[in-house]
Amino acid sequence: MTDPIKVIEIKKSVFADNDQDARLLRGQLKEKGVYLLNLMSSPGSGKTTTLIRTIGLLKDRLRIAVMEADIDSDVDAVIIREATGIESIQLHTGGMCHLDAEMTRQGLDNVGMENLDLVILENVGNLVCPAEFDTGAVCNAMILSVPEGDDKPLKYPLMFSVCDVVVINKTDVLPYFDFNLEKCREYIRMRNPKATVIPICAKTGEGVDVFASWLEGQVKDWKQQ
Amino acid sequence: MTDPIKVIEIKKSVFADNDQDARLLRGQLKEKGVYLLNLMSSPGSGKTTTLIRTIGLLKDRLRIAVMEADIDSDVDAVIIREATGIESIQLHTGGMCHLDAEMTRQGLDNVGMENLDLVILENVGNLVCPAEFDTGAVCNAMILSVPEGDDKPLKYPLMFSVCDVVVINKTDVLPYFDFNLEKCREYIRMRNPKATVIPICAKTGEGVDVFASWLEGQVKDWKQQ
Repeated sequence: MTDPIKVIEIKKSVFADNDQDARLLRGQLKEKGVYLLNLMSSPGSGKTTTLIRTIGLLKDRLRIAVMEADIDSDVDAVIIREATGIESIQLHTGGMCHLDAEMTRQGLDNVGMENLDLVILENVGNLVCPAEFDTGAVCNAMILSVPEGDDKPLKYPLMFSVCDVVVINKTDVLPYFDFNLEKCREYIRMRNPKATVIPICAKTGEGVDVFASWLEGQVKDWKQQ
Repeated sequence: MTDPIKVIEIKKSVFADNDQDARLLRGQLKEKGVYLLNLMSSPGSGKTTTLIRTIGLLKDRLRIAVMEADIDSDVDAVIIREATGIESIQLHTGGMCHLDAEMTRQGLDNVGMENLDLVILENVGNLVCPAEFDTGAVCNAMILSVPEGDDKPLKYPLMFSVCDVVVINKTDVLPYFDFNLEKCREYIRMRNPKATVIPICAKTGEGVDVFASWLEGQVKDWKQQ
């Protein structure tokens, strides 16, 4: 019998200054040499499948853990642990629409920051609120899936402007949707000229190696800084 | 030259009691005989396309107006007016993740409640926050699109439990996704045994007549109550 998934009931911060909490957390992460990736997206864009593929490519090269912030189930944490064998915990947010730095720290206290290179936080599926709160992560990443449409950077500008990398998922269904990849790249550049854009198909694995290499490079560069 | 789309800068309520505001607004709607439909979904699930098709079927039978709550563009309000010819206004929410009853009332004050049977509020694309705020609408509707996955009722329980109707959109791509329609119906029933479930494809128009008839019936029943 396998251990049950650890479920953490996280509470909203009693402190008002989330930006300060986030800076403090980022400082601690730097001290411990842990790279925290905050992964955001709409519901159903493929965060969990992307993570499983990415972790599969990186787990022998980096020590990884995952924190899942699902709203009312532990499905994703179980799936990730079963598929990858890495430590995965569930953050119960009690219906919250985002995570802040204090909630993230509560998760990290449970994962532990020793003996890890990379912690991935799967944020609540929401293109609005998570973009407004600095979680303390070293890097913000988002997934936009083809069926959502190439105009999303026009409609959810803050999310695109706070992300260092935009993964465009479900490229296998490009023939069935009116999604123009070049137009989407252009809209993303309007919001965030520095963002890295990586098209992938998490279902087939196509392009996931590009994202995994990019992430591994980021983790290593950051540890050496 | 056509008139420019009316853009309303809406502000958060200064009153604390949204539920009371919502009840008051519903009372006024009842007095005026205006049915307000609050349409919610994830980003990119096809709210606007569904509305255009539905309005096309109903606009000679009901007097309709649309309020668009987009975050940072007036694209949808323009598209809807150009495609259907009906009055469409844009509610600028200043990045808000949801609408409350006071914000909805500000929109209705601009649309006017005379000479209308049906006002459709296209809420912010978000499966979390809009479910928490009663807008004063007579009916809550949501769209779940096939690419988002059949497990969404498990992950966003509140949204599914507050909706009277769940429209399942993009059925044309069912062959390309692992989406089990029966399983999805079962998950929706778990959250909300009374919800009406209507599969459609807004792109081709398939099933939109079913949704339009259902909505017309609701508006007429409510006016006669």
